[in-house]
Amino acid sequence: MITIEYDGTDFLGWQLQAEGRTVQGVLEDALLKTTQENIRVTGAGRTDSGVHAEGQTAHFGTSSELATERFAPALNFWLPDDVAVLHCCEAPGDFDAQRSARSKLYRYRILRSSTPRPLRDRYVLREWRPLDLGRMAECAALLEGEHDFTSFASEHSEASGAVRRVLRSEIREDGDEVHYLVEGEGFLYNMVRIIVGTLRRAGLGKLSVEEFAGVLEARSRPAAGPTAPAKGLTLLEVTYPEDPREA
Amino acid sequence: MITIEYDGTDFLGWQLQAEGRTVQGVLEDALLKTTQENIRVTGAGRTDSGVHAEGQTAHFGTSSELATERFAPALNFWLPDDVAVLHCCEAPGDFDAQRSARSKLYRYRILRSSTPRPLRDRYVLREWRPLDLGRMAECAALLEGEHDFTSFASEHSEASGAVRRVLRSEIREDGDEVHYLVEGEGFLYNMVRIIVGTLRRAGLGKLSVEEFAGVLEARSRPAAGPTAPAKGLTLLEVTYPEDPREA
Repeated sequence: MITIEYDGTDFLGWQLQAEGRTVQGVLEDALLKTTQENIRVTGAGRTDSGVHAEGQTAHFGTSSELATERFAPALNFWLPDDVAVLHCCEAPGDFDAQRSARSKLYRYRILRSSTPRPLRDRYVLREWRPLDLGRMAECAALLEGEHDFTSFASEHSEASGAVRRVLRSEIREDGDEVHYLVEGEGFLYNMVRIIVGTLRRAGLGKLSVEEFAGVLEARSRPAAGPTAPAKGLTLLEVTYPEDPREA
Repeated sequence: MITIEYDGTDFLGWQLQAEGRTVQGVLEDALLKTTQENIRVTGAGRTDSGVHAEGQTAHFGTSSELATERFAPALNFWLPDDVAVLHCCEAPGDFDAQRSARSKLYRYRILRSSTPRPLRDRYVLREWRPLDLGRMAECAALLEGEHDFTSFASEHSEASGAVRRVLRSEIREDGDEVHYLVEGEGFLYNMVRIIVGTLRRAGLGKLSVEEFAGVLEARSRPAAGPTAPAKGLTLLEVTYPEDPREA
């Protein structure tokens, strides 16, 4: 099991593609160089193109005799500057980074600024208009619990059923930034970004709390706001009922 | 007067060079495109290659008829993604961004991590060994006040005299980072980075508080530690006794 951080800017997302640079692809390349084995890596979440991660997790099997504690330094030696393995440990044979996961925690960063901000523009959505954070927080709280999130799923979503349980959905102010934190057992395609696009409309006064509740009830993608840009989104953490990292 | 943010990674520093990309250079290019005038920009601080800024200031004169409030958007239209004008205002005729400045505030970021951290490596020095923050804070405090900073100046410094007044010199913990904040009326060449290189040695237990005090008293560059890398340093703010931004 490995825990991974990456800057998603120059990746076509997590998942291996026929063409183009992906996080899974560079990790499998680094594993080949480290072990001389062709190893398939399974990630907990298939983050989209441009989405970042501070705590993505993944698993793989290997017959390499390299000691577990040597894997992270060896992989980091081969990995490019925009991906790093933060931690590596042995996991039980039935551990699956994706299927064993209990929840995933994402953060979306909105920066309140009327001008470009070179030191943060790779990681935030900028908004210069005033945002009503109280209203955004009220709307965010409506999403906690088990709901049908059809309105907040891309029409290209291939998932069967749209009912998901959201454990935490909150707005926090952090200096000149507004953060949306959402933790859930599973997410539909583009779900966090569509939620943020809709929360932003509420914050701008274009949607009341009642209207936001109506979006959820509508079970229709066109009822929600636009999909917020990928670059503001970071996968912070994946949790497990029995976490091999704590063993 | 303009206030500027930049990511110093891909610049050979602030000051115009015969060859190579500099912040002053791209600003003067953007001013030429905006006003059709050849305009000289004077910055408050000539940051080194790789040093970042969140609040660099500068001034220039122009006979353009463009309204003051249109300058920032116009310049940002022409500027590359790694520089932005955050604010622009009129200043009195005798205002000089460098000579009128009262103080400059710098922050140096140390990230405590044993692995690469792709989301922050452009902006921090990484240290995996334990740091004694109490000792670092005690050493930092010794630098407040007026001192001869010869030990903490590059031997390539061209300044006349090495006596400088430091208004604030402190260590702060911020999550998994250690920040050194230093405010002074003026700094010698590489002074902040040499201070950080020496504070780090103290934090690692290689220098006692008494030995750190001895470094200051020695007035000799070899007594101090190595120059810390530029990428951890950010010019946060330049203050003025009469600040045109507050007018």
